Amino acid sequence: MTSQNAISAVLARLDETLDAARGRLFDLLRIPSISAQPDHAADCRKAAAWLSGELGALGFTASVRPTEGHPMVVAHHPGPGAGTNGPHVLFYGHYDVQPADPLDLWTSAPFDPVLVDGPAGKRIVARGAVDDKGQVMSFLTACRAWHAVTGGLPVRVSVLIEGEEECGSPSLEAFLAANRDELSADLALISDTNMWNIDTPAITTRLRGMVYAQIDLKGPSRDLHSGMFGGAALNPLNLLTRILGDLHDDAGRIRIPGFYDGVAELPAELAGQWQGLGFDEAAFLGGVGLSVPAGEHGRTALDRLWARPTADINGIWGGYMGPGSKTVIPAEAHAKVSFRLVPGQDPQAVAAGLKRFVADRLPPDATADVQVFSGAPGIEVPTTAPWVKAAQAALTDEFARPPVLAGCGGSIPVVEALQRHLGLDSLLMGFGLDDDQIHSPNEKFELRCFHRAARSHARLLARLAGAA
Amino acid sequence: MTSQNAISAVLARLDETLDAARGRLFDLLRIPSISAQPDHAADCRKAAAWLSGELGALGFTASVRPTEGHPMVVAHHPGPGAGTNGPHVLFYGHYDVQPADPLDLWTSAPFDPVLVDGPAGKRIVARGAVDDKGQVMSFLTACRAWHAVTGGLPVRVSVLIEGEEECGSPSLEAFLAANRDELSADLALISDTNMWNIDTPAITTRLRGMVYAQIDLKGPSRDLHSGMFGGAALNPLNLLTRILGDLHDDAGRIRIPGFYDGVAELPAELAGQWQGLGFDEAAFLGGVGLSVPAGEHGRTALDRLWARPTADINGIWGGYMGPGSKTVIPAEAHAKVSFRLVPGQDPQAVAAGLKRFVADRLPPDATADVQVFSGAPGIEVPTTAPWVKAAQAALTDEFARPPVLAGCGGSIPVVEALQRHLGLDSLLMGFGLDDDQIHSPNEKFELRCFHRAARSHARLLARLAGAA
Repeated sequence: MTSQNAISAVLARLDETLDAARGRLFDLLRIPSISAQPDHAADCRKAAAWLSGELGALGFTASVRPTEGHPMVVAHHPGPGAGTNGPHVLFYGHYDVQPADPLDLWTSAPFDPVLVDGPAGKRIVARGAVDDKGQVMSFLTACRAWHAVTGGLPVRVSVLIEGEEECGSPSLEAFLAANRDELSADLALISDTNMWNIDTPAITTRLRGMVYAQIDLKGPSRDLHSGMFGGAALNPLNLLTRILGDLHDDAGRIRIPGFYDGVAELPAELAGQWQGLGFDEAAFLGGVGLSVPAGEHGRTALDRLWARPTADINGIWGGYMGPGSKTVIPAEAHAKVSFRLVPGQDPQAVAAGLKRFVADRLPPDATADVQVFSGAPGIEVPTTAPWVKAAQAALTDEFARPPVLAGCGGSIPVVEALQRHLGLDSLLMGFGLDDDQIHSPNEKFELRCFHRAARSHARLLARLAGAA
Repeated sequence: MTSQNAISAVLARLDETLDAARGRLFDLLRIPSISAQPDHAADCRKAAAWLSGELGALGFTASVRPTEGHPMVVAHHPGPGAGTNGPHVLFYGHYDVQPADPLDLWTSAPFDPVLVDGPAGKRIVARGAVDDKGQVMSFLTACRAWHAVTGGLPVRVSVLIEGEEECGSPSLEAFLAANRDELSADLALISDTNMWNIDTPAITTRLRGMVYAQIDLKGPSRDLHSGMFGGAALNPLNLLTRILGDLHDDAGRIRIPGFYDGVAELPAELAGQWQGLGFDEAAFLGGVGLSVPAGEHGRTALDRLWARPTADINGIWGGYMGPGSKTVIPAEAHAKVSFRLVPGQDPQAVAAGLKRFVADRLPPDATADVQVFSGAPGIEVPTTAPWVKAAQAALTDEFARPPVLAGCGGSIPVVEALQRHLGLDSLLMGFGLDDDQIHSPNEKFELRCFHRAARSHARLLARLAGAA
């Protein structure tokens, strides 16, 4: 039976076993593997062991691997074996979940998963339903069906499931570096993103990077009385607003010299596809109490969110912040500023540009410390890569419409880490929806999305085997 | 014995009784009348009663008058009686003191006054030594000497000593309004300011006023993720820095339209006197870690501090202020901003100008609440007033050099309150020094200053009687 012949049987198997698949997901969801809370460390180990067992049952060589924090699950399946030429896939996911509080806003217990009726049919409600246990299980469910129907997998697959994604993946980079050979593959497959809408799949091909910095300005050696010194003494708060108020020009462009170096206009094809999506900017902004887009003039909404860099002040503080009045000229002023970067921008150049921008605006007696906390480039998955074509075909087969090649305004740090440590491009094929309430009470995963996710992963494995 | 004949005897009496006068000041300093601390309320009442008794012993009709807070001391002395034509003086002072902490930085107990040796001779060290018990007692000591030598005072004198100055005088305005007739006089005399230096007296004839406001900006209806919304959503912190960064032009002038309306250039004579003072700007700034004057270009240091208005941001906050990074676009941004005003500026017009300045810079979807906490005009005592001439003469006699007609960069709210409620101009003749450590550990009053203060007040009473 070839992959392309097998897929029909695999899909049929998935349809027949949906309830069992949902049941296994429920088993995993019942483990409160909250990575941020130390008293759930044992639950994290339990979830890792559960997944290792699950993978072992699907023909993987699986193990739970200790780290400084919560353990990793690593598993390998040889696929059809030597001589086949499909790509070697490294599937990445995470078994840890966000804390569940505020508990009183949940309509059911967060770690007692339930199926409830929603506008789109049944939905699974639990912490981790979609982020990321449900998405991880959709892939394992596809593997299970392949294993059941064909006794194996159509391509070679390794799996890395971490338990610290929700608290910043502190052990990930060291683990990737220490296990580079074992984790080598041809591409990474990540199922932790969203569809365009419930009927339209999406592959995320662009992620914005980020430079995040803290600016600490100092002026006088101590806090001063604004009556005694006002008019003659440097006020670091006046200076801070003057510097940061200068970050954007009147057209919303960022004034740091060289900031736009390397920023390319979107390829016409992608721009055209985005234009055609009919993104409802009014609804997007209206949902958060806004009506008019801010930011760079002369750009479409999706351009601003997915394809253009930004500068945002994320925090600012200094002087007197209590009730009423205090006539102080403070000795210091502080701000946190971040830049979302797009592919082509060099994070180090942006950080250096920010430092120069601040330094160029310092009067005598003022000092500035610009501390850069993080810098990661924007990422673009070449849409011409064969696995992107395979995913497009798989999703088009499943949904009877092509996937949106979407951007993501945020960063997914693991994508950058996989590229840097293992040299892997990531295929981001996810099945969440914008209203899934991840990180919030009543997180849910539409049962329909879970099922189509499993079917899509099954089709992708077939396509990858055929596309190789 | 006429006033001018009596003054020699009064001054001699002051010289002979200095140690007894110091002893009475020590008695008052031993009462820890800290107005801000509720457990010192009884001490405040005790200090008020002590002063009432002291005034009664000097021929005043004195009483302790309750308020919602700490009591007032009110006393009246008829002076030489009907038919004399010297002005009626209302002496204002305060018996309350600042808290003494941090206690471990005091070299002696704050409420156990001591005489210690200093570079300028003996100095009195205690909380309240100069602010304002020592200055109040210098006036009462002058009255005591007049009383001892002549059996009375050369002019009619009323006294108002409050007990809440160090916590914002919350009961003062209502008390002035309710006792307008009783407190009517021809001028107010206040001894709560400084000399130019230990050898040079000063009369403060200009005080800056103030408008203090809080600006609250709102944008999105909730905090947003800067990846998901950055580039399309209004960021109130970006907006706040843009608005406040626009407050000053490149020459340090304030850009609020109409802000300088009514601001006059300093009279040539006063400007000349200030120029001649040889103000050591380098030392002034160097003391707080600065080397270059900030603020309005093309102005002298004293002009900037005493005769020009300012805009200072006194506090700013919003978004994430903790360690590390959080990628938030906050829903709100806040700042406290104050303007020091000079005579001629209308505080209400400045407040309205600020509101317009902010409103003019609001993009769609942003709202601003500009809350004005206080507004008081700058105050100028006409230097041609007869009591200013009398004080100049008295101080010139005492110090063998004319007093500096000084400005004060800050506000003294009671001056404005006395003008508004009682229609009184204030004569600000004070004997503190810049290094007296008021509000700090080891507050001191040079014994020499205390003594010359009493002699100067004695001379002033004589001059007022003669000048009437």
